[in-house]
Amino acid sequence: MTDELFKVKTIGVLTSGGDSPGMNASIRAVVRTAEKFDIKVFGIKHGYFGLINNEIVEIDTHDVSNIIQRGGTFLKSARSDQFRTEEGRAKAAENLKKYDIDALIVIGGDGTFTGANKLSKEHNINVVGVPATIDNDIIGTDETIGYDTALNTALEAIDKIRDTADAHERMFLVEVMGRDTGFIALETSIASGAEVALLPEELTHVDEVKKQLHDMLQAQRRSSLVVVAEGDETGGALKLAEKIKDDFAQYDLRVCILGHTQRGGAPSARDRVLASRLGSAAVKVLNEGHSDIMVGVVNNSLKLTPMRVAISKKKDIDHTLIDLAKTLR
Amino acid sequence: MTDELFKVKTIGVLTSGGDSPGMNASIRAVVRTAEKFDIKVFGIKHGYFGLINNEIVEIDTHDVSNIIQRGGTFLKSARSDQFRTEEGRAKAAENLKKYDIDALIVIGGDGTFTGANKLSKEHNINVVGVPATIDNDIIGTDETIGYDTALNTALEAIDKIRDTADAHERMFLVEVMGRDTGFIALETSIASGAEVALLPEELTHVDEVKKQLHDMLQAQRRSSLVVVAEGDETGGALKLAEKIKDDFAQYDLRVCILGHTQRGGAPSARDRVLASRLGSAAVKVLNEGHSDIMVGVVNNSLKLTPMRVAISKKKDIDHTLIDLAKTLR
Amino acid sequence: MTDELFKVKTIGVLTSGGDSPGMNASIRAVVRTAEKFDIKVFGIKHGYFGLINNEIVEIDTHDVSNIIQRGGTFLKSARSDQFRTEEGRAKAAENLKKYDIDALIVIGGDGTFTGANKLSKEHNINVVGVPATIDNDIIGTDETIGYDTALNTALEAIDKIRDTADAHERMFLVEVMGRDTGFIALETSIASGAEVALLPEELTHVDEVKKQLHDMLQAQRRSSLVVVAEGDETGGALKLAEKIKDDFAQYDLRVCILGHTQRGGAPSARDRVLASRLGSAAVKVLNEGHSDIMVGVVNNSLKLTPMRVAISKKKDIDHTLIDLAKTLR
Amino acid sequence: MTDELFKVKTIGVLTSGGDSPGMNASIRAVVRTAEKFDIKVFGIKHGYFGLINNEIVEIDTHDVSNIIQRGGTFLKSARSDQFRTEEGRAKAAENLKKYDIDALIVIGGDGTFTGANKLSKEHNINVVGVPATIDNDIIGTDETIGYDTALNTALEAIDKIRDTADAHERMFLVEVMGRDTGFIALETSIASGAEVALLPEELTHVDEVKKQLHDMLQAQRRSSLVVVAEGDETGGALKLAEKIKDDFAQYDLRVCILGHTQRGGAPSARDRVLASRLGSAAVKVLNEGHSDIMVGVVNNSLKLTPMRVAISKKKDIDHTLIDLAKTLR
Repeated sequence: MTDELFKVKTIGVLTSGGDSPGMNASIRAVVRTAEKFDIKVFGIKHGYFGLINNEIVEIDTHDVSNIIQRGGTFLKSARSDQFRTEEGRAKAAENLKKYDIDALIVIGGDGTFTGANKLSKEHNINVVGVPATIDNDIIGTDETIGYDTALNTALEAIDKIRDTADAHERMFLVEVMGRDTGFIALETSIASGAEVALLPEELTHVDEVKKQLHDMLQAQRRSSLVVVAEGDETGGALKLAEKIKDDFAQYDLRVCILGHTQRGGAPSARDRVLASRLGSAAVKVLNEGHSDIMVGVVNNSLKLTPMRVAISKKKDIDHTLIDLAKTLR
Repeated sequence: MTDELFKVKTIGVLTSGGDSPGMNASIRAVVRTAEKFDIKVFGIKHGYFGLINNEIVEIDTHDVSNIIQRGGTFLKSARSDQFRTEEGRAKAAENLKKYDIDALIVIGGDGTFTGANKLSKEHNINVVGVPATIDNDIIGTDETIGYDTALNTALEAIDKIRDTADAHERMFLVEVMGRDTGFIALETSIASGAEVALLPEELTHVDEVKKQLHDMLQAQRRSSLVVVAEGDETGGALKLAEKIKDDFAQYDLRVCILGHTQRGGAPSARDRVLASRLGSAAVKVLNEGHSDIMVGVVNNSLKLTPMRVAISKKKDIDHTLIDLAKTLR
Repeated sequence: MTDELFKVKTIGVLTSGGDSPGMNASIRAVVRTAEKFDIKVFGIKHGYFGLINNEIVEIDTHDVSNIIQRGGTFLKSARSDQFRTEEGRAKAAENLKKYDIDALIVIGGDGTFTGANKLSKEHNINVVGVPATIDNDIIGTDETIGYDTALNTALEAIDKIRDTADAHERMFLVEVMGRDTGFIALETSIASGAEVALLPEELTHVDEVKKQLHDMLQAQRRSSLVVVAEGDETGGALKLAEKIKDDFAQYDLRVCILGHTQRGGAPSARDRVLASRLGSAAVKVLNEGHSDIMVGVVNNSLKLTPMRVAISKKKDIDHTLIDLAKTLR
Repeated sequence: MTDELFKVKTIGVLTSGGDSPGMNASIRAVVRTAEKFDIKVFGIKHGYFGLINNEIVEIDTHDVSNIIQRGGTFLKSARSDQFRTEEGRAKAAENLKKYDIDALIVIGGDGTFTGANKLSKEHNINVVGVPATIDNDIIGTDETIGYDTALNTALEAIDKIRDTADAHERMFLVEVMGRDTGFIALETSIASGAEVALLPEELTHVDEVKKQLHDMLQAQRRSSLVVVAEGDETGGALKLAEKIKDDFAQYDLRVCILGHTQRGGAPSARDRVLASRLGSAAVKVLNEGHSDIMVGVVNNSLKLTPMRVAISKKKDIDHTLIDLAKTLR
């Protein structure tokens, strides 16, 4: 995968897909590391949309100063239906050539990587992926950029809900993000001491949920929290509420959907360090001649994963944590 | 209203209605001030429900140590349909006599005060109200306990949503609490730099809202935030979204309902100081012989308002702030 | 003070002195309000230093978008010894003329206002002051911009210190900002439930402090917090520690100086609203022909105070709060 | 190390040494897991001091409800000189027998483990250690309980200091905790974008530090942050300031010592999950017959380390992170 003769002179960097806290820290690391290697950097605005539409501008170390602590992405993100077509990608490749950009760093999730993988294959463009999504569902890295921040944001919200649940001895169903995977739901349920967690990874039998809640309320708990991943097969917190409300009428059942607050905010220490490591590594591995790979951190070490592998499936949840959640209820 | 001969020896304190951050700080101030006057304090659990059902226990300074910073209420809150009946209140009055409680401090909102007012009239019981609700809708005080914290909680959430709105150049409709009044919606909209705020106090013409949003988006703003009070006549953020989504299809309109997260959390400095002032004042004015009044802070000074006045209407919003919001858009 | 014929066409705005959270929100309000009145705005970087050295640049509504939530000041602040001289101020006045700036809004504390007052008198320049300092020591306004945020920042730090003080049953001396006044010390001591507060406004007898602490420790409290204003006559927390450490040897006395963390951070809801009100009002009163005045909010209404009055003395602390602190210990 | 015949019926749990956020979550996990195994739990207050002085009380699931989110430790911590003596430990062992406690879980750092190791050897008592210290300096676990929270607390403070450093274009020396190791200093310096970090693990040449700062200030940076571990050989931030202040006179050099705020606060999501895993694992491994070991998480899996190994040396810092910090400056 490495090619000793190749020497990167100019790279492009973009953020794509759902934004996540730490994307800015990652762009900063790309720019500052590139500078050390005398590589010129172009920032591409609005992801693949901007790549096709020529929103490409040179950026340097001053453009990325004082952004490490900011949520969102100053390069903006966007969807691009055009990039899903061969014509769109051809136009993108053309633009890269126009600016003499010989390699592209894409920061985002699996949708982003799927696009990059096609661009790489069709137009022989060097690409490296940096995994950034609050969902943490990418294989090839223990954590994705933004996950830790989203977890803490959701947890702080649930802590606040617990205050009012306790004061009123109510039952709350709290929906957290996670369309396909239950990472946020599982870890926030453990960390908040929730009574039950519903994950897309497990079959949810509403009758069992009811029974668990009944048993807990019997055992002198007078408030309870259920954390529900948006992608749980019950259909989310509102639908679950419909299904169980008659059984818990006396608990004044309430629903809270945390929603997009989980995407924003200053990144946590962990996310900033991870974003810095991966952004910096992306430049280094490009410079070493790698392409069509994703950088990740596994067991505290840098790991390279071929793009096609990274997009082949969703990451598995840690089943020992599911057991832990059940033990601690 | 004052009776020089009356000397309070034992007071009861309860929290009732929706909980709000600072209730614990207020209970603490009641207990510690009472101690200085050699007054015994009984804590009544679960509000009027517990008063009727005998959940009454003596509390002292140690019971309230290390609670000033906690959200919720350690005395719990609850609804009591029984207290809405004469029989219920008679039973409550009986219990107060059983414990030789000669005065009652009720911490809550206008529903709480309505009950206290009846109890006072029907059974000649000395009551003082301490205004605590995140809605800030009580007259006789510039602010209610919990309002400032709720404002900051909602604002921090909106700041996070702004991050992702900016990254994606999306439009967000954010619903904040406020069933009858728009205090939270108005102040968070100013503080977050929201493009539009919809309040129960103003007629909302959906066509005008659309026009404002169109004008702003024309003027090179590519993301926008609309803050909607839950009690706005449009029916809240979800209903508003239904009405405008076709006009802003390209902005990938999203809805966020902040919900009960706004009730919890460690109280802000301002709320803890206000709660401490009012809890302490409640004991003092009882000791001076006042009854059937609410304590408040108006223009930085303690103000007493007769209960019947305090419950006669909702507080008006500050119209200079509505003008300010419009100027700064 | 008003002059009906005068019509402002161009204003300058600067931030000076110690920065405080909300300065950016205030600049934003100046720019957006000016726009409504068709007034051009120049931003002056580095306060009076930049005014003398020509760091003057036109700013518009886009320059101030997405800054309402940021701490610090994007116009920067600086000290300027030159501006303390007549020559310096003459040069500043000359620059204002060069840019056709017919009025100046200065955002800062009493040092800032003293300079503006001289500039106004010596060169007949219209100036309006906006009170922004975390110390809250300016008369003519109930609160200064930044005070509420600093209070909450200090309080959150003290809450954390309380955790470890309780775990170890230790005594902590915590120093908060306040060189001449004890506003932060007094309100954080009430809000944190500190055992003792030492303020510049009160004579501190170390023997009395020792006695109070001894009494409290006798009364079964095993940890204690003393909040000390940096300007307290003991000389601050480190010096106090020297004086009392031998008497409390068993409590493993610790000192924490909160320092400059109190200056930064995202402004609170209250500070953003206040900053927005005052920035907007500054433009309006200039436009109405006022000059050499400070805008403030007293009892929830806008109040104008002549500059010479605003700088004539420090604001008094609220003595009812001192009493409250003592009652609740 | 395992003994199939041994069956634990009663365990004691204590926290000792410097407190760290997550200790409560860990105690909760011990109690709830023990309950699943029908094991009785005694809470020992004030660490080894309380073990010697008989502060031992049975605790169950209700005692640990609603504590997962609290900083500090409800079992309190304390130093015990007596436990450092053979007589002290003999008395401790006697008390354990008196209560029929057949195994002890100690939550703390290497000082705590050294004591437990001796107790185990001298009196054949089954002990398991749970690593909890903000310093993260224990081998046998990737992270210690409390480290992630301390990191975020320090980072938030540094972010605030950055606001004021930028506004004034000042230089700040910020001292973070870390007497023997630079984990907090290194990771916060990367995450905050600090210009320089001084760690106990590296020789610090003050002349080089000066040169680096001069170079950066030349390169158009007008503010700068230096993060200093308290255990750096310069002697900490105050001493460093003495050494360099004359060279940077124009930058109005300031020092900030973050101190004990880093110990408190609600634990982060990561710390709560880690504390829950390790607390739960401690019970399980005791039940499986292990003793005189420490539980840790290495590469996302549970790892057991003999106590004598765990206390044999401090954990090494990750040198790839030191390189990263230098690359990103």
